[in-house]
Amino acid sequence: MKIGGMMINGELQLARPLRWGMVGGGRTGQVGYKHRTGALRDGTYHLVCGAFDVDAARGRDFGMRVGVAEERCYDSYQALIAAETARADGVEVVSVATPNFTHYEITKALLSAGIHVICEKPLFFSVAECDEIAALAREKGLIVGVTYGYTGHPMVAQMAAMVAKGMLGEIRIVDMQYTHGFNAGDDTGASEAQQWRVDPARSGGTFVLGDIGTHLQYLSEIVLPHLKIEKLLCDRTAFIPSRAPLEDHATVLMHYDNGARARLWVSSVDAGQMDAQRYRFVGAKASVEWHAARPDELLYEVQGEPSRILHHGMPYLEEEGHEYDRMGALHTEGLGDSWANIYLWIAQAIAGNPPARYPDMAAGTSGVRWLENCIRSAEAGGAWVDYA
Amino acid sequence: MKIGGMMINGELQLARPLRWGMVGGGRTGQVGYKHRTGALRDGTYHLVCGAFDVDAARGRDFGMRVGVAEERCYDSYQALIAAETARADGVEVVSVATPNFTHYEITKALLSAGIHVICEKPLFFSVAECDEIAALAREKGLIVGVTYGYTGHPMVAQMAAMVAKGMLGEIRIVDMQYTHGFNAGDDTGASEAQQWRVDPARSGGTFVLGDIGTHLQYLSEIVLPHLKIEKLLCDRTAFIPSRAPLEDHATVLMHYDNGARARLWVSSVDAGQMDAQRYRFVGAKASVEWHAARPDELLYEVQGEPSRILHHGMPYLEEEGHEYDRMGALHTEGLGDSWANIYLWIAQAIAGNPPARYPDMAAGTSGVRWLENCIRSAEAGGAWVDYA
Amino acid sequence: MKIGGMMINGELQLARPLRWGMVGGGRTGQVGYKHRTGALRDGTYHLVCGAFDVDAARGRDFGMRVGVAEERCYDSYQALIAAETARADGVEVVSVATPNFTHYEITKALLSAGIHVICEKPLFFSVAECDEIAALAREKGLIVGVTYGYTGHPMVAQMAAMVAKGMLGEIRIVDMQYTHGFNAGDDTGASEAQQWRVDPARSGGTFVLGDIGTHLQYLSEIVLPHLKIEKLLCDRTAFIPSRAPLEDHATVLMHYDNGARARLWVSSVDAGQMDAQRYRFVGAKASVEWHAARPDELLYEVQGEPSRILHHGMPYLEEEGHEYDRMGALHTEGLGDSWANIYLWIAQAIAGNPPARYPDMAAGTSGVRWLENCIRSAEAGGAWVDYA
Amino acid sequence: MKIGGMMINGELQLARPLRWGMVGGGRTGQVGYKHRTGALRDGTYHLVCGAFDVDAARGRDFGMRVGVAEERCYDSYQALIAAETARADGVEVVSVATPNFTHYEITKALLSAGIHVICEKPLFFSVAECDEIAALAREKGLIVGVTYGYTGHPMVAQMAAMVAKGMLGEIRIVDMQYTHGFNAGDDTGASEAQQWRVDPARSGGTFVLGDIGTHLQYLSEIVLPHLKIEKLLCDRTAFIPSRAPLEDHATVLMHYDNGARARLWVSSVDAGQMDAQRYRFVGAKASVEWHAARPDELLYEVQGEPSRILHHGMPYLEEEGHEYDRMGALHTEGLGDSWANIYLWIAQAIAGNPPARYPDMAAGTSGVRWLENCIRSAEAGGAWVDYA
Repeated sequence: MKIGGMMINGELQLARPLRWGMVGGGRTGQVGYKHRTGALRDGTYHLVCGAFDVDAARGRDFGMRVGVAEERCYDSYQALIAAETARADGVEVVSVATPNFTHYEITKALLSAGIHVICEKPLFFSVAECDEIAALAREKGLIVGVTYGYTGHPMVAQMAAMVAKGMLGEIRIVDMQYTHGFNAGDDTGASEAQQWRVDPARSGGTFVLGDIGTHLQYLSEIVLPHLKIEKLLCDRTAFIPSRAPLEDHATVLMHYDNGARARLWVSSVDAGQMDAQRYRFVGAKASVEWHAARPDELLYEVQGEPSRILHHGMPYLEEEGHEYDRMGALHTEGLGDSWANIYLWIAQAIAGNPPARYPDMAAGTSGVRWLENCIRSAEAGGAWVDYA
Repeated sequence: MKIGGMMINGELQLARPLRWGMVGGGRTGQVGYKHRTGALRDGTYHLVCGAFDVDAARGRDFGMRVGVAEERCYDSYQALIAAETARADGVEVVSVATPNFTHYEITKALLSAGIHVICEKPLFFSVAECDEIAALAREKGLIVGVTYGYTGHPMVAQMAAMVAKGMLGEIRIVDMQYTHGFNAGDDTGASEAQQWRVDPARSGGTFVLGDIGTHLQYLSEIVLPHLKIEKLLCDRTAFIPSRAPLEDHATVLMHYDNGARARLWVSSVDAGQMDAQRYRFVGAKASVEWHAARPDELLYEVQGEPSRILHHGMPYLEEEGHEYDRMGALHTEGLGDSWANIYLWIAQAIAGNPPARYPDMAAGTSGVRWLENCIRSAEAGGAWVDYA
Repeated sequence: MKIGGMMINGELQLARPLRWGMVGGGRTGQVGYKHRTGALRDGTYHLVCGAFDVDAARGRDFGMRVGVAEERCYDSYQALIAAETARADGVEVVSVATPNFTHYEITKALLSAGIHVICEKPLFFSVAECDEIAALAREKGLIVGVTYGYTGHPMVAQMAAMVAKGMLGEIRIVDMQYTHGFNAGDDTGASEAQQWRVDPARSGGTFVLGDIGTHLQYLSEIVLPHLKIEKLLCDRTAFIPSRAPLEDHATVLMHYDNGARARLWVSSVDAGQMDAQRYRFVGAKASVEWHAARPDELLYEVQGEPSRILHHGMPYLEEEGHEYDRMGALHTEGLGDSWANIYLWIAQAIAGNPPARYPDMAAGTSGVRWLENCIRSAEAGGAWVDYA
Repeated sequence: MKIGGMMINGELQLARPLRWGMVGGGRTGQVGYKHRTGALRDGTYHLVCGAFDVDAARGRDFGMRVGVAEERCYDSYQALIAAETARADGVEVVSVATPNFTHYEITKALLSAGIHVICEKPLFFSVAECDEIAALAREKGLIVGVTYGYTGHPMVAQMAAMVAKGMLGEIRIVDMQYTHGFNAGDDTGASEAQQWRVDPARSGGTFVLGDIGTHLQYLSEIVLPHLKIEKLLCDRTAFIPSRAPLEDHATVLMHYDNGARARLWVSSVDAGQMDAQRYRFVGAKASVEWHAARPDELLYEVQGEPSRILHHGMPYLEEEGHEYDRMGALHTEGLGDSWANIYLWIAQAIAGNPPARYPDMAAGTSGVRWLENCIRSAEAGGAWVDYA
């Protein structure tokens, strides 16, 4: 541990690179580049194959442009599985960057074929599906990773360490927000990616709760692993009526088993909002606050003392806040660096050496369980429900 | 109207200064100086008498030190009323800066004696009391002003003007917060002012909802005069158990009659919080956000355009945002300047020339009504209640 | 000393209020209200007379509107002196809020008549004038105060205390800036106040150096009373040519006697700048940084530790940072509060009980000396000059 | 051009990847990972060889850990050149991440062997060296790129576009700063990297001017390509005496040929400074301000209008501000993303398709020329010198 410097320097953390493929994430996708820039920068993954696009020709052209051999650019995930499992040097792990409604079937097929999976969130549509897939992965001895892409930033680990060490005191209040205004207008002429997100058949039972709210929920679990939700209330609405019964705005209240209270706000009609994603964890003695838009700073406020701003890469951070720093103090870490850590952790898990925590099958299941509870409350008119 | 410059320059806005007195607000009080610095700076009020302190001797000494003649420093509000109503030059308006449980009786006595009242918030304990006092004031032709001290800042008027002119579009979301951590520890050894605030008999049915939440509620009414609350849910708790059944933390959700949704968060255990009081009003097109800790700036975010920061005193503001500016651009307005405007507006009302809006009897009643609804929801276990 | 609370509560700090008058500062002036709101709020000064305006009728009307008796609203400062010195209850102290070129003659006349003076900056045109007036004041036993209006904020005292106590270590670097863009365009149609500021005959040998640069220089003297300037270089220019030889932009470099280096930037053509006035004092161990636009916050950065934000009114401040706090923690202090402290300190000096430091004749002289050195350097082509 | 989205998605911008090597940048270096994460993420460069370390064994072990074949991990740059030029698949471009004093000889040797060079800044010790190398590169038809790593951020291109399109008006003032406090203490026990930086024989004639000041100078050239420096003054000092005659603090004043004035401040003893690197460009109508610590935001201030904050990835940016965006709106770009663009641009130049501007040999030379002028002024006692 080199306190005060960066830990990650590009040296391979595994015995050898993993053979990696993608389903989805092609030229027109929003998120494909985040997967690639996360996976490729340290030589941990080699991109060897893909079924990048529902438009097979476009997908093949794209795959070759990102360095995949033509014969390993497939027309479908089924073709990918068939061909790759027949190769001695077949793909070992595949990322699924497709619309929500396909996650379950693709993941199931990949695992059944003996291939590790890295999947977009929200993972599936129900906890039942999650449990089935978890059992399959366990049986096959395979990993399912979930790309909660913000949680790889060193400051997230720093917050978790501060809470674990009692620097905040007993947790009392959690305030979380992921809101933006990019859907303030209606969906006339919206991209395909937006259209499936507001279609219950393809998105699952939620729009923004699943699309961005799960980021909040998972990050809070990292910081507060010792707390369990006891009760939950979800007040949701669609300001653009065509999105109903899905929501473009929701407030979720939660009571934890230690008496702590949380508010989670998620919206895509928060017009003009650019400081989109924020977290505040309040304890009996102190609070920490983190904004994803300025991820290298952490506000640490001890009641009765000057407010402190902690900066990434500095020696005064907890050891956990250093371990996956890439740029070092004064040099900004971006979202790509966070994704790189997520991909690295999943690679370590695949290699049989998982880190203490990474976004695994259980994390994905937890997010789906949380969505089920939100939907149950919302459908009861925004009533309190016991967390199940 | 001198657009771009300051409107207030100290010239008397009335025919003559008002003869003014205080009940409470003496040497040991927290809020007395805010009343005085608000009232005295422009010559609108002359402080002629007071019953400044429950410790009569200390109150007399104090009164003389703020320029009141010894014989007009009284031992009690009853003595003040008796003596002043007997004078030809008796007091015309009295400010009540005493614990909550005394507001009703003192206000009633002053009005009955023909004296205008300026009272701290929360005004009284029940809407019934408010209605009775309102009727009395009406009958007597007297003014009751309420010191919602933040709402005099020019940027509050600017926000209201922007909403009224449709610059935000139809309002969808309101997010409000007034939280601090000064009561994160328990009340052992607390000041007298803190002790009565957590005693239901002396504070009324709430602690932080009444103490600071009413500021949020009133300011939102100024900005959104056209919206009515239809449903409300109040989830409150006391993290310091001795404060129960009163709360040191509460989240209030509200649905308005146009479909808009609000969240209001109030707490005095938000450890380390110094950006205490904030408002975000989100419309279909744009949002405005105001932080009381940096009151001269207004964040105006039109979806799809660069974020804008509006500064007080600048010519591009709406006319309403200029009218009560005191310092001019580049020169900070403080809380004292906001109080000065509140006191000026109440003086104008007393002089028969009320501004379009000021914190009047109706505003005070509205705050008490809101507290009653919060309590009703909280006592039903944090359930939704129809606003009544 | 009530650590953690506010010190100022409106109780009179003197045996009795001072009888106060103004020359200038009438209805059309920019700065008159700042004088009045500073002087009047605590009952320390009673405004008894004035020659408020070169337009005598307008000045009389204005004076009556700010509560001055008609017969004590004078047509000129000469008339004011003549009449007031003839009264038993004549004015004791007069504020001079007139264009720069009149400061010397009015101050001299007032002092000669036995009247204390509070004068705008820059005080006079030359150190020779200052020395003459200082001798006169000394001979008469009178006070000359200078309205460096920003320096009354409690955070300025806090910075000075931190430096004095060695919390920063030996001072190495000073970086100061007072820039805005309100004169980015030319002076066609400019206000009278702007016109005299760019006329060498009426402004003195500088425009922005005198108008706003002297604020920087005086505040740095408060924080660094132990340092002396040894060398200085002034690089100035007029981006609007009609302002030459006066400057609308200047950079001043300074070497102090301990080896410290300073940069001071002053401009009125810094288009769009709203964070106008800032100070950074860097020592061997730590730095403090203060922005006048957010005066209640102080950035305190110890090398190798988290950055700290200190907030006004908080118990952790040095005692000096509390003494003249007016609003208390969480409640913003504005520029008016700072002016109130300046006026209070000058009143204490007049009453024979001066505070440890206030903007006195020596402070005014020091500012004029600094301007003389700046001009000398600028006229030598921006060359280094030994400070004289 | 996909306005409003990201341009870079990982598709290869060249016909094939470049065969790339490194001299220096091994396990103990500070900057090696920035080179690798910049070069490798998009498949543009394949790391095929290196002489990573003066400790040859450590360098070989490191090289193998970053995926280089053992036989292409060399003991010295001489060995690298000898072996690689003998291979049919020899290295095409080599990055030089070694101490300053070795840049010239390594670059010369690489170019002489027909290998393109990417070199750390400051490039060499003199303009004469630069001119010699430039001639050699020209003769050989080879590229020399310089890693001004901050200038790849899309907001830098945005600023340049805004200036070029006249959105600021004629440029008047430039204010630049790159300061930190990591060398506030003395160099006892300092790292090897720090020791050579304060040794004139190994660092060249400057410490912080070369180490960080050249970043400021190059970025200003990108934004202001139409302006030429006419006069310059450099006031430098070493607060840690052992660093003399090199400087740990310097202020540079510059006059441009259009009359504009600049201040550049560079220091490594600015204790506690974490907002290290900033730029403000002021025109007759408006200003832009960019802080490298929050690189995704650009402050755009038009005089007389609300301040605007522009965010990366948004459709309202100029086309130039989109072209090399990688993450898209709401998703932070870090320093690694900026380096990735620099490496991409150099690759495009090597491939014969250079972008309109990239940090080339001329940029490196310009930085060295600027340092020579700074030294000349400093050695003349901080005097003005005509820029040569």
